Amino acid sequence: MVLIGNNVISIGLIGLGIVGSNLISIIHENGEMYKKRYGLDFVFTAIFEFDGALINENGLNLKEIMNSEDIRKLSSWTVGIKAEEYIPKLKAEIIIEATPVNSETGEPALKHIFTALNNKKHVITPNKAPFYLKYHEIIKTAEKNGVSVKFEATVGSAIPLLSIKKTLAGNTITKIVAVLNGTSNYILSRMTNEGVDFELALKEAQELGISETDPTLDIEGYDAAGKLVILANHLMGMNKTIKDVKISGITHINKQIIELASKDKKLVKHLGIAKKNGELEVSLKLIKENSPLAVDGTLNAVYFETELAGEIILTGRGAGGPEAAAGIISDMINICREYR
Amino acid sequence: MVLIGNNVISIGLIGLGIVGSNLISIIHENGEMYKKRYGLDFVFTAIFEFDGALINENGLNLKEIMNSEDIRKLSSWTVGIKAEEYIPKLKAEIIIEATPVNSETGEPALKHIFTALNNKKHVITPNKAPFYLKYHEIIKTAEKNGVSVKFEATVGSAIPLLSIKKTLAGNTITKIVAVLNGTSNYILSRMTNEGVDFELALKEAQELGISETDPTLDIEGYDAAGKLVILANHLMGMNKTIKDVKISGITHINKQIIELASKDKKLVKHLGIAKKNGELEVSLKLIKENSPLAVDGTLNAVYFETELAGEIILTGRGAGGPEAAAGIISDMINICREYR
Repeated sequence: MVLIGNNVISIGLIGLGIVGSNLISIIHENGEMYKKRYGLDFVFTAIFEFDGALINENGLNLKEIMNSEDIRKLSSWTVGIKAEEYIPKLKAEIIIEATPVNSETGEPALKHIFTALNNKKHVITPNKAPFYLKYHEIIKTAEKNGVSVKFEATVGSAIPLLSIKKTLAGNTITKIVAVLNGTSNYILSRMTNEGVDFELALKEAQELGISETDPTLDIEGYDAAGKLVILANHLMGMNKTIKDVKISGITHINKQIIELASKDKKLVKHLGIAKKNGELEVSLKLIKENSPLAVDGTLNAVYFETELAGEIILTGRGAGGPEAAAGIISDMINICREYR
Repeated sequence: MVLIGNNVISIGLIGLGIVGSNLISIIHENGEMYKKRYGLDFVFTAIFEFDGALINENGLNLKEIMNSEDIRKLSSWTVGIKAEEYIPKLKAEIIIEATPVNSETGEPALKHIFTALNNKKHVITPNKAPFYLKYHEIIKTAEKNGVSVKFEATVGSAIPLLSIKKTLAGNTITKIVAVLNGTSNYILSRMTNEGVDFELALKEAQELGISETDPTLDIEGYDAAGKLVILANHLMGMNKTIKDVKISGITHINKQIIELASKDKKLVKHLGIAKKNGELEVSLKLIKENSPLAVDGTLNAVYFETELAGEIILTGRGAGGPEAAAGIISDMINICREYR
């Protein structure tokens, strides 16, 4: 459909961390362009934090929020408001869930997502855990309520890995092999290219802010496994959770293994693999030096084996605030295209 | 939108060459799957050749056509019917234009495309020439008539290079650098990996059926230039034709240049480059050995520099009958999603 004129789209954002802040800053900067190019006027009616919320049904002043040293001192701030309680009455067509999430329970994101969907609001989130824990429950709740849930940024940020489903319509994906975690790939790349050892490469990744302070989820393969589940469920029609993935990390790697591979013109990569028969695995594998999956540093790469078109590989930055925000914005625009 | 039940979609196909034959064979084989998965029942009401057409308003028997040694002996064949004369009265919602095309005039494809659009039929084609010659005229004719024209298969076959426009919504592509021609890339890869000389590599490409019998358009860069124009117009909002591209081919390459590059850990690649300022160029360039554009053999690879998400690279098979047919089928399904 073609959107004509300026359609005001009201949005509630939960969580003003790195992704949330990048999002409002990009929307503020590019707002005029989105009006012109898509006829869409994005207005934030609420921004929730854990201890309260900024609320203005006519639209919050994004510039004021970006320039504020403490949002809790702004006039639109109300202390104590809880997202899950306020969402049912909030004037918002789209809820963006961008809170810090517990990787084992998926909370508080899950609670927010179900509340929003059950109140017939579209949902967009960069949070993986809800989808590697309760993928089908979320999708069915959205369908039941006639709204959309989009999550492009959960895997590979703005690399259009999930929306490829639409562009590969008519074709069937028979296998996925992927480099899904920037920290692990950075460590392996440094060990391969510069011959540094595991501990030093990990320390670097932490100092450069590539890895979380606690890198466990990255180097033990859980982050990659969560993303693999989402790809397999969304693109191969599976019904898996992270418990179905055979996971091994990269902590047992050493320089000798990498050198041995190198002599054979191979690279050691930490790969997520989804097979047609339902097997999901994350582990170290050898690949050819000139393989399209031989990406360097923090890049992500996903190889799709397709029935009709052979192999298709998508590569790009898998993490970062602006990148995740870009994934969210493409979801926002695509929801508007589908529903208005 | 969600399609419910079996929607019969009537299709007219012009040209039963390699792509056309692959298309009907895939539709025949996967027809039940498309009904089940998308609720779409694709029915061919006409298949035009240069000297006549198979016509059946209730749907041609695809199996009979595939098994026929000479379609001109089938009962549905009528000699002398011309596509451009018959299209206005043909019962078909979508016209697929897959004739052999003159690379300088774009005919007869252009004539067929305009006739179909002006008769309010959607158009899908794997033919490049119409789009590197008259891109905006075609798009405007489609808009004026309220129908869609899709051409995913013109660049990189089923690699979703054109539909990435939708998935990168909200973002701006600021530069494109791409390996767009399989023959040239095969020749350069063979020269690099095996040290064979240009003439031998070219002869191999011809013998393997990678290159056309006349490889001029490939090795002189025109094929890549045509694809670059389509990418630049479609994804960067330009208004260019192939005449705007500064083109140089790969015929002046020799083993010495490749060896020299190799000593510096570089590869010689034939790249199409589109810059924000409107400059379009196809020529030999040096890239790093571990660049995501360092694809081997007949693979295509396209690097997008984006404003918000950094670099995104798409890689895959750029040519082949089933691959092109897969691109056409995704266009068919997406047109149905948008218009029904």
